[in-house]
Amino acid sequence: MIKKHGGNVYKFAKEHQVNVEDIIDFSANINPFGLSDVIKEAIPSMFEKVLNYPDPNYTDLKDVISSFEGIPEEQIILGNGAIECIFLLAEHLKAKHLIIPVPTFVEYERAFSKYQTEISYYKMSDMILDIDCLIESFSDQVDAVIICNPNNPTGALVERTALEKLLNYTKEHQIALIMDEAFIDFTDDEDKNTMKTYIDSYSNLIILKSLTKFFAIPGLRLGYLMTGHKELIESINNNRMPWSINSIASQVGELVLKDDLYIQKTKEWIVKERQWFYNQLSSIDGIYPYTSQGNYIFFKTDGSDLDKQLAKYSIMIRNCNNYEGLSEGYFRVAIKDRNSNLKLISCIKEILWKS
Amino acid sequence: MIKKHGGNVYKFAKEHQVNVEDIIDFSANINPFGLSDVIKEAIPSMFEKVLNYPDPNYTDLKDVISSFEGIPEEQIILGNGAIECIFLLAEHLKAKHLIIPVPTFVEYERAFSKYQTEISYYKMSDMILDIDCLIESFSDQVDAVIICNPNNPTGALVERTALEKLLNYTKEHQIALIMDEAFIDFTDDEDKNTMKTYIDSYSNLIILKSLTKFFAIPGLRLGYLMTGHKELIESINNNRMPWSINSIASQVGELVLKDDLYIQKTKEWIVKERQWFYNQLSSIDGIYPYTSQGNYIFFKTDGSDLDKQLAKYSIMIRNCNNYEGLSEGYFRVAIKDRNSNLKLISCIKEILWKS
Repeated sequence: MIKKHGGNVYKFAKEHQVNVEDIIDFSANINPFGLSDVIKEAIPSMFEKVLNYPDPNYTDLKDVISSFEGIPEEQIILGNGAIECIFLLAEHLKAKHLIIPVPTFVEYERAFSKYQTEISYYKMSDMILDIDCLIESFSDQVDAVIICNPNNPTGALVERTALEKLLNYTKEHQIALIMDEAFIDFTDDEDKNTMKTYIDSYSNLIILKSLTKFFAIPGLRLGYLMTGHKELIESINNNRMPWSINSIASQVGELVLKDDLYIQKTKEWIVKERQWFYNQLSSIDGIYPYTSQGNYIFFKTDGSDLDKQLAKYSIMIRNCNNYEGLSEGYFRVAIKDRNSNLKLISCIKEILWKS
Repeated sequence: MIKKHGGNVYKFAKEHQVNVEDIIDFSANINPFGLSDVIKEAIPSMFEKVLNYPDPNYTDLKDVISSFEGIPEEQIILGNGAIECIFLLAEHLKAKHLIIPVPTFVEYERAFSKYQTEISYYKMSDMILDIDCLIESFSDQVDAVIICNPNNPTGALVERTALEKLLNYTKEHQIALIMDEAFIDFTDDEDKNTMKTYIDSYSNLIILKSLTKFFAIPGLRLGYLMTGHKELIESINNNRMPWSINSIASQVGELVLKDDLYIQKTKEWIVKERQWFYNQLSSIDGIYPYTSQGNYIFFKTDGSDLDKQLAKYSIMIRNCNNYEGLSEGYFRVAIKDRNSNLKLISCIKEILWKS
């Protein structure tokens, strides 16, 4: 069964009888700058390569990712979206017992339970992941833990020092530490926040990355994982199906990771807009936002149907009631362009005043 | 490990120090008409949808396939290339013992052995699949058989009456019959040759289709399977990862299947060019081609290094020596545009005369 996710504009359009183009989608966390100019310019030439099978080794794309991340090619596994990396990881890590701090992204559970990994949830206290408490909760059976950092949907970032402690603990106890850094490029200081610098010395560390959100290409599906865990890399490479990344996605990947202008512009924008948007949401009576380091803001409100109310304005937001560990009244909104953000703020105000 | 396939122009370019654009690739069976005009016209607008996640149910694409094939949507499973359908099938059919008539496409074995299916090969006599002999070879353990029709790499087509006999036998004995019809649209009379009309009355029948070859989009990855086997469909739908088809591929699929002009043009061309090309190859001393109903021709020759000789002319052909059931000296060439075909003929002649 397909889990409920944000971003299903097609279903929303049918349910509410609106055109997809008229929807303002705050439910998917996509960079509002949209497609980079370098992609737009390359579109016609990219289609020439559609006539050939993709390079089964995706050598050029791996080269570019390797330079971008400062990680050797042989430590990189590409995926048809980060989601394929999660499923490949679940299949080949063969973990017996995975701990998932919740609330968090719903596909970890689905992927790992598919491959017979037992799953325990560690419920965060007030949406904050306390690493000491997490470690205390580990039973002897635990051999894997996954942390989304910054966390989706809460936006909370775990500090590097705490993660270093966890990294050492997990290495000592032969526990795989999976860090989902799908949103790390949106944080105030990505270089300080990423754990990728440790993959050489900690073979139990696995980093997941996505290009979907930062480069606004969710339709193209492109992600990767990075690890120094040689057996894992080998097992995936030897057993996966060929050509799982389509050649448009791989060519776009090669372009965007070298597009410093777009990257810089986005980084400068998100820091300012996130603070402004958070302040705006905070100022609304009845909306209680959490501090975020992602390109989205998570909040609590007293009612449980804010998403349904906003649908009347053709606005989609993410009702988080299907996340493990969350009850009704929690929502997540993407940080979009200023006009859209203003529109959301004014609609929320209108709805809450009326109620 | 990635199996050797045709179409790896990137590896060839590196090995022979030529530009990808200068290679004449006879190793991948791709329609030489290239991208349809309807795709070219739609390219800019297709990229607008990249900003959204794909519809997780791919409703529009399934609609179009359903009309094209005359098969209800709920009997269709989409794949990121037909190869994903093969892997999904291997995973969810849970066959104990699969019979593969060889030589044939190499990924069946890889996909099914990944999921612990025991595999037996049935070696065809002189590249002809005799259905009576095949049935006689079945042991009690056999619960699945896969037939590529027309067969890749040989091009041989099994007649419908023989397949009907196999269909009845397999139904009676609860054996899954998988028909890979990736090249069926290239045959002289697709309507007469396809087995899809039986999927309603034979739930043990599974049909695989690919859009890659006929519509010249191997870089995009798009295929599907059709079956009346409800539990299989349900098991795949409930357990697969979301968004495995990228939105460019799904939009292209929606367009090409309605492109009657391109379809008609291709069907008319292949019938004539195949006969001409076969005659030309037959007329070369030392080249022994097999009759084909695919968009490729398979032949035997006395030497084993024709592919290496042709590489000097920047021509790639498929050396079939890594196919189960084949020894050295077998090659497969795609049927391309007349100029390329003439070039191949003249290069082969030059090579054979010299030797």
